[in-house]
Amino acid sequence: MSQITDYNQLTSKELFPGIQAKIDHSDNMTVMHVTLEKGAVLPEHHHPQEQWTNVLNGKLEMTIDGKTSVLEPGMAAKLPSNAPHSARAITDCDVIDVFYPARDDLK
Amino acid sequence: MSQITDYNQLTSKELFPGIQAKIDHSDNMTVMHVTLEKGAVLPEHHHPQEQWTNVLNGKLEMTIDGKTSVLEPGMAAKLPSNAPHSARAITDCDVIDVFYPARDDLK
Repeated sequence: MSQITDYNQLTSKELFPGIQAKIDHSDNMTVMHVTLEKGAVLPEHHHPQEQWTNVLNGKLEMTIDGKTSVLEPGMAAKLPSNAPHSARAITDCDVIDVFYPARDDLK
Repeated sequence: MSQITDYNQLTSKELFPGIQAKIDHSDNMTVMHVTLEKGAVLPEHHHPQEQWTNVLNGKLEMTIDGKTSVLEPGMAAKLPSNAPHSARAITDCDVIDVFYPARDDLK
């Protein structure tokens, strides 16, 4: 596999209105660089992959297994396999999401 | 496992001179928020974990399997299991490193 990924050069994929992701994969992980516009909503869903959401900029409200938290820069949410989760961007946000195993549905 | 990690509140561990890491783990992954001071050197090493290094700020020179690249913000290196790698901070850097499986040696 390629060893360097320049996310600046990747094309964004709109996952939901106002939520743009640049996505790459390794053998076992998927790493997405995500921007969310203020007010954007990620509807509740779940997937078998374990997930980390690292907030770089902005304020992101996440609801995981029915519990709501507000993540600010330097905070991360870790989601077990199949945990139902949703999110709402309180401000514009920059986020790095990481998944194990890789998200074959996004390849 | 706890669902929210506030890296701002974690205590840093000095991995090597000038390289400070705040470390947390999920079932299958380890996520480290790392700062490197300009000039800091990560000596060549390898580990069975697959690794991603996401550069948030600064310029980081990485040598992976003998090939040297300079990573700038928005760039990431993906390292297969057991790939020998080293790094040198060209400037102060902020980095998020992700590992699969979890780094039991850092628990």
